[in-house]
Amino acid sequence: MSQDPKLQPRYSGIPTFMRTPFAPELTDLDVALIGVPFDGGVTNRTGTRHGPREVRNQSSLMRTVNQATGVAPFELVRVGDAGDALPESPFELVRAHADIEAFFDRIRAAGVLPISAGGDHSISLPILRALAKDRGPLALVHFDAHCDTGDFYLGSRFHHGSPFKVAAEEGLIDPHRTIQIGIRGSLTDKDIWRFSHDSGMRVIYIEEFYRLGLDGVMAEIQRVVGDSPVYVTFDVDGLDPAYAPGTGTPEIGGFTTFEAQQMIRSLGNLDIVGADVVEVSPPFDPSGVTALVGATMMFELLCVCAQSLTRRARD
Amino acid sequence: MSQDPKLQPRYSGIPTFMRTPFAPELTDLDVALIGVPFDGGVTNRTGTRHGPREVRNQSSLMRTVNQATGVAPFELVRVGDAGDALPESPFELVRAHADIEAFFDRIRAAGVLPISAGGDHSISLPILRALAKDRGPLALVHFDAHCDTGDFYLGSRFHHGSPFKVAAEEGLIDPHRTIQIGIRGSLTDKDIWRFSHDSGMRVIYIEEFYRLGLDGVMAEIQRVVGDSPVYVTFDVDGLDPAYAPGTGTPEIGGFTTFEAQQMIRSLGNLDIVGADVVEVSPPFDPSGVTALVGATMMFELLCVCAQSLTRRARD
Amino acid sequence: MSQDPKLQPRYSGIPTFMRTPFAPELTDLDVALIGVPFDGGVTNRTGTRHGPREVRNQSSLMRTVNQATGVAPFELVRVGDAGDALPESPFELVRAHADIEAFFDRIRAAGVLPISAGGDHSISLPILRALAKDRGPLALVHFDAHCDTGDFYLGSRFHHGSPFKVAAEEGLIDPHRTIQIGIRGSLTDKDIWRFSHDSGMRVIYIEEFYRLGLDGVMAEIQRVVGDSPVYVTFDVDGLDPAYAPGTGTPEIGGFTTFEAQQMIRSLGNLDIVGADVVEVSPPFDPSGVTALVGATMMFELLCVCAQSLTRRARD
Amino acid sequence: MSQDPKLQPRYSGIPTFMRTPFAPELTDLDVALIGVPFDGGVTNRTGTRHGPREVRNQSSLMRTVNQATGVAPFELVRVGDAGDALPESPFELVRAHADIEAFFDRIRAAGVLPISAGGDHSISLPILRALAKDRGPLALVHFDAHCDTGDFYLGSRFHHGSPFKVAAEEGLIDPHRTIQIGIRGSLTDKDIWRFSHDSGMRVIYIEEFYRLGLDGVMAEIQRVVGDSPVYVTFDVDGLDPAYAPGTGTPEIGGFTTFEAQQMIRSLGNLDIVGADVVEVSPPFDPSGVTALVGATMMFELLCVCAQSLTRRARD
Amino acid sequence: MSQDPKLQPRYSGIPTFMRTPFAPELTDLDVALIGVPFDGGVTNRTGTRHGPREVRNQSSLMRTVNQATGVAPFELVRVGDAGDALPESPFELVRAHADIEAFFDRIRAAGVLPISAGGDHSISLPILRALAKDRGPLALVHFDAHCDTGDFYLGSRFHHGSPFKVAAEEGLIDPHRTIQIGIRGSLTDKDIWRFSHDSGMRVIYIEEFYRLGLDGVMAEIQRVVGDSPVYVTFDVDGLDPAYAPGTGTPEIGGFTTFEAQQMIRSLGNLDIVGADVVEVSPPFDPSGVTALVGATMMFELLCVCAQSLTRRARD
Amino acid sequence: MSQDPKLQPRYSGIPTFMRTPFAPELTDLDVALIGVPFDGGVTNRTGTRHGPREVRNQSSLMRTVNQATGVAPFELVRVGDAGDALPESPFELVRAHADIEAFFDRIRAAGVLPISAGGDHSISLPILRALAKDRGPLALVHFDAHCDTGDFYLGSRFHHGSPFKVAAEEGLIDPHRTIQIGIRGSLTDKDIWRFSHDSGMRVIYIEEFYRLGLDGVMAEIQRVVGDSPVYVTFDVDGLDPAYAPGTGTPEIGGFTTFEAQQMIRSLGNLDIVGADVVEVSPPFDPSGVTALVGATMMFELLCVCAQSLTRRARD
Repeated sequence: MSQDPKLQPRYSGIPTFMRTPFAPELTDLDVALIGVPFDGGVTNRTGTRHGPREVRNQSSLMRTVNQATGVAPFELVRVGDAGDALPESPFELVRAHADIEAFFDRIRAAGVLPISAGGDHSISLPILRALAKDRGPLALVHFDAHCDTGDFYLGSRFHHGSPFKVAAEEGLIDPHRTIQIGIRGSLTDKDIWRFSHDSGMRVIYIEEFYRLGLDGVMAEIQRVVGDSPVYVTFDVDGLDPAYAPGTGTPEIGGFTTFEAQQMIRSLGNLDIVGADVVEVSPPFDPSGVTALVGATMMFELLCVCAQSLTRRARD
Repeated sequence: MSQDPKLQPRYSGIPTFMRTPFAPELTDLDVALIGVPFDGGVTNRTGTRHGPREVRNQSSLMRTVNQATGVAPFELVRVGDAGDALPESPFELVRAHADIEAFFDRIRAAGVLPISAGGDHSISLPILRALAKDRGPLALVHFDAHCDTGDFYLGSRFHHGSPFKVAAEEGLIDPHRTIQIGIRGSLTDKDIWRFSHDSGMRVIYIEEFYRLGLDGVMAEIQRVVGDSPVYVTFDVDGLDPAYAPGTGTPEIGGFTTFEAQQMIRSLGNLDIVGADVVEVSPPFDPSGVTALVGATMMFELLCVCAQSLTRRARD
Repeated sequence: MSQDPKLQPRYSGIPTFMRTPFAPELTDLDVALIGVPFDGGVTNRTGTRHGPREVRNQSSLMRTVNQATGVAPFELVRVGDAGDALPESPFELVRAHADIEAFFDRIRAAGVLPISAGGDHSISLPILRALAKDRGPLALVHFDAHCDTGDFYLGSRFHHGSPFKVAAEEGLIDPHRTIQIGIRGSLTDKDIWRFSHDSGMRVIYIEEFYRLGLDGVMAEIQRVVGDSPVYVTFDVDGLDPAYAPGTGTPEIGGFTTFEAQQMIRSLGNLDIVGADVVEVSPPFDPSGVTALVGATMMFELLCVCAQSLTRRARD
Repeated sequence: MSQDPKLQPRYSGIPTFMRTPFAPELTDLDVALIGVPFDGGVTNRTGTRHGPREVRNQSSLMRTVNQATGVAPFELVRVGDAGDALPESPFELVRAHADIEAFFDRIRAAGVLPISAGGDHSISLPILRALAKDRGPLALVHFDAHCDTGDFYLGSRFHHGSPFKVAAEEGLIDPHRTIQIGIRGSLTDKDIWRFSHDSGMRVIYIEEFYRLGLDGVMAEIQRVVGDSPVYVTFDVDGLDPAYAPGTGTPEIGGFTTFEAQQMIRSLGNLDIVGADVVEVSPPFDPSGVTALVGATMMFELLCVCAQSLTRRARD
Repeated sequence: MSQDPKLQPRYSGIPTFMRTPFAPELTDLDVALIGVPFDGGVTNRTGTRHGPREVRNQSSLMRTVNQATGVAPFELVRVGDAGDALPESPFELVRAHADIEAFFDRIRAAGVLPISAGGDHSISLPILRALAKDRGPLALVHFDAHCDTGDFYLGSRFHHGSPFKVAAEEGLIDPHRTIQIGIRGSLTDKDIWRFSHDSGMRVIYIEEFYRLGLDGVMAEIQRVVGDSPVYVTFDVDGLDPAYAPGTGTPEIGGFTTFEAQQMIRSLGNLDIVGADVVEVSPPFDPSGVTALVGATMMFELLCVCAQSLTRRARD
Repeated sequence: MSQDPKLQPRYSGIPTFMRTPFAPELTDLDVALIGVPFDGGVTNRTGTRHGPREVRNQSSLMRTVNQATGVAPFELVRVGDAGDALPESPFELVRAHADIEAFFDRIRAAGVLPISAGGDHSISLPILRALAKDRGPLALVHFDAHCDTGDFYLGSRFHHGSPFKVAAEEGLIDPHRTIQIGIRGSLTDKDIWRFSHDSGMRVIYIEEFYRLGLDGVMAEIQRVVGDSPVYVTFDVDGLDPAYAPGTGTPEIGGFTTFEAQQMIRSLGNLDIVGADVVEVSPPFDPSGVTALVGATMMFELLCVCAQSLTRRARD
């Protein structure tokens, strides 16, 4: 299939991510676009298991050049759709996470940079478990309405509200090189995100976000991450629900897609080892706009990953 | 809250099932209406965890007398909303089932007849585990597009496609007194419902359904069940998706709501010990009509349960 | 605007009913298509005030010849869109009804036969008040899930559940020449439709409907109405919600659109003085199919009204 | 039911406002959360009668601590769901308002602060009639796209576009201590909001809103209200329809949810006697996001009401 | 990707038709499943260009064995997804048809039987042009609400209401071996389907359909087609809109999915050379049920095509 | 019909644009509101052929006075709904454009200023062809996410991505007096909008838009256009999809409705010869909010056109 909508209309063909070649064997790939259709870690509204398919569908609207930055990712690096990281059993959270980790171990072993579409946010944990084996503990740039550093919930330590607490405790990420952006919403208890603060993460609440301004926030990201290898995770509920209604835990009062795009574009000079876009929930997205937002964020991430890989190759 | 819409509009108030009193302690109840918001056993599209709430919402449209049969259930028996049977952990299927079973043990111990709104069809298994302790093995009247007597699936023996195989194997139901009505759809493999046939269940495929006609089907139900204590389970995907689009595994070519109502109304002379309506999935039900269908089927089941209890009390 | 979709696409132009000329002055009209955008008599879900506009919108799909009967209504009679019968005040039910009656007085005085799109079913009362002045008491053919012969409700004698009780009490309709078809659903109390039976109306519940069969029902209509002048009222909730989900008081287990079409087509030999289609509620009709059903029923009614007027003119 | 989603998932149970205890007798309450499911004052699209139920439904997503301000309202004051303020007759506007007033007379007499979910904006009038009996005339903080100080409309002085004109004329509110924020949209006639200006209300049109900036607007609120007892009314159409599409009279070009939250949070030092959130219209809200916005605004109002009550108790 | 949902969940992976291998080179294929995303021939509501993608999406719900007939098509014949037949230019109808014809010429030349998903019904014309080159004129089994044998429309002889007039005139189909089933709806003019009758096609209007009964209709199909090579075309608007709302020209009063399935299953003994399912329009299908219906009809057609090919191979 | 919602509710009557008189003969008109229901130039998602009808529908919400500027357009100029500019054949793009041009030739000849609702953006080309005959080449103010100065696409030089390249090449617009505002999104190839730059158009990408600020952008518009006769074209995809989801080629990260309103209001001193609002696609607009946005932008354009005409008449 051609990626060029001038030759083949976007509504046609079988939707791989951004119409890239289907490459489950990872042959000749620098970057793998991966679906992780798992929502067994959700504490409220499910549906993100359908995220990868709808993000793939809407990603046909992506083209090949980033107009704002001039980056042409498909010229810089070899990109393919590596298929879905599927748990053998979707019924048991812990086993499912182990299966996902094994999939990403294979990605890592092949020297391929993964950009994933979730799935609920709990999938970042097994991805980090795989990626940190080489270069961990990693820095983390985390866009979200929630710190996701919570504790036991409905009887489980593992769920979509806790991956980064567990990741820090397991030494996968370095809390002092972790920045969380867009945090807001009411709290179950005052100390629910206490781990973020106690462990040294930099938390930018939405009020501080607007006080600092975009330039200030982008400077903070650079300061916190520095030259560490870094993972970027983008939860679409960091965006205001006006921009991304199709998600399981919407919180009003969030940032805009324009602001998100600017922030992601500022990451091109970092040493990125992987990225994900999570919590797109098609059953709650009647107009499909959230899947489009998810696909566009994947494209923005692809552009900075391509920059990062190119520079790394050059150095 | 009054149940009488002449006094209180149906859109008002806090929606308990059919506007019955909220009675989580089960005091002075003959019949408990119960939500089981669990969908951890789903193999494809989730969302039935939201079923009980939307069925409660739409059940405000129910009134108090069955026009076709003249049964006035709220005059015959004491009915209340007993709340939700919640697993402590929704993340692990087997543990969740144990929690649900414990909830229904309490119902059984109180001598209350449960009518439940799921949740996915896997919830019938823990309910049967609880109810069969007194009077099992039970007869089963099962309306569905699928036999749900499948084997391992995605690595698990327990899921929403297997509850009645497990129930028969555990001795909770008597296969020779089990009738499955409305079966259709393509098959994963030729032998997927083999257990139904091998174990002696009476399977009425949709083609035979229309050959026999409603009277023939209703006679078969009576013949198979006889005077055994019986559980009735109604999967809304037994209905054609034109009538019940909001469900996880729709199969075209099913029976109508009118036919379903006639069949349920024929059960009033049976010795019913419990019933459920499962697989209402609100995220796939934009017009709410499936939740309305689910609520109405609960009302029809309530009427025959009331008849059954009244006769049992009289005898 | 041309009515011919071969010359002008159906999605174009300003939607009058069935693309007929806008004729608020009633000049040169035999039949007036009228909107009655009033829903102040609704006891549960509102929205039928938007019915006329969406029925007009979908009525662009109507063409000019009834394929089943061969009737070409626009060749037989002069048809126009007379605009909306609007209450001056939508805030007070009794005053609103008086305003609607005045509108239809003008229609009657002009010797024009009205076919109306509601609005809630309470609008049939003021229409009957106007039409019965000439030829009442009228016979009534009434398609519905509910008898609408109820009593006081939420403090009012007038609402969309009572028009035909009031109409009979006021001598507008003759109960012995009234037939109600499709009745079903649970009841607020056993005697809620008692007035229908006590006054001598012929009530065909949905169970009898299917026992009699279409031919039997159509024979009953002829027998009850005879050669009396008759009004036809079609509540879309008489249809199963699979066919007409967008309505305020849906009741599962109803008749089909095919059955409704056959019944309406059997009325061509009656002496029809007016008709309406009510309870289309666009906010509950995401796919627009209920408005399409409403528009098609108006077209079927137009065909039999045209037959009736033609014969009356000839005799 | 536990309010803690760590113990009970949010999609479960029977939805009272914010999962507070159902307390229709007002026993041991400081703040009552109340539904007012009435939309008989609407001049265009109805549906807000369904507002309270959907706001209750979405309010399960609320937690217990305001992350931005640190306020934990359920620790400061006793909060319960007092049920619905229902008019005995929904068919006649003036009588309905009298019934609503009587309900709030009971709230006032019990010394409980009411926070209501509408319903159309006309409900603020009977609420003010009740609350002003003790401490009126009251100051008013009014978020809206419309001044709602209009005159006769479709034959009635009372409707959802006039409550604050009537309230001022009846001496329930003090125009000089009234501030209206977010006003915009086209006008029926140049003088439609003339009463606001003539009576001395402070009107902040959306253009001035953005000129002043949030700090400027918040300073104006403080200046106008001062230490008067004040009622706060939040019409969701004050927000841009991107944030709150499900409403009857949307006007593009409005403020954001983030801005609304900041403004409400600035009211904690005022002497608040009651508040409402109105015009959430579920039939026009396919994704449910407007009901979520309404629920969150109620939570923000609860936080400042709790601050206000606490300080009042302390002083 | 495995076709077995016991090994891979249906919501996962990249959706080819029925999860068959993507085989655009047609290597080792007996049957090709093909998308034709073209809707330039539509006279009213567009959107069927999105049909193939959504039918592919929903076709993940298909399994491998036809439960009613026992046919296991993937064991009988080699099946693949051959991609989309795309016009080089979607802007000009006549050129687009030529491009589609060229695609099917290649299919025919490879000796592969095509089963296509439209697209609007005009696509059957270029498909027939290709297929008739070998074995034409062909018999035709045509399920539809419309005869599609119309004449000039909005200035064009070619559109989705005329393919079978043109096909007969070009000698692609034999009118005397053509049967059209389910015809209904109002008519633009009395003679619009005159060509069907004049040319000798067998037209079964919906009223005759129900008079004959399913057995009678199926006997007529056998009688008309006999042992001629036959093409089968299934327009989803033949179904009642309750079953298939997502289509461009819905007509109420149609047949059911159960009836459609029985009719298709009766075709297994015919000499089928190709088939299509057309007019699925996702933008008008909010619940996705029409795409599911389309996918299931493709599966039913695949089963009889597999039977037909197997017998042909054996003879 | 009265335009005054105080006399006639907005949901009533037959929807002309802004409830103006239907005036297809253009008698006594200064400004014609025109629908152009054509989407044959679309390269991806269709549906804008339904735009005019839904914009008319939502335009009932428009009132008569611009609150922000005080302009009362219906007092300044005579405005009517001139109906739809319909191509005789919707099947062939080039012929369709010729038909549309002919319609606007008639408008121009009558000395009436047209404000059109599309339709896809390709319709601006035939409109400009008509309008430029008198006063061309025209200046152009162009709000959009895309420059629409592309080249051949899917085999055609004419489509909704190229009108302004063709318009410049044909001398209809003056590139040096053309300004394009809001440009963003990924690119098919680096040079796709090269024509804009090479020909001298002023392109304000969204990043520069926010750097300049609204005042800066508005100054640029004045500087570029000067006192040339100017056409204004507003593609709703210039807005962020949060504000206008119902469009065929959404691009996240756009401007807001508030910003759009300010920009349009700044055009009142220009010499405007016509305007359009395009790319409203109702099938992708489940809540109707995009059609409301389109209607409001038409009202804002009407206000500045009325100012422009009034001044021109005065001078």
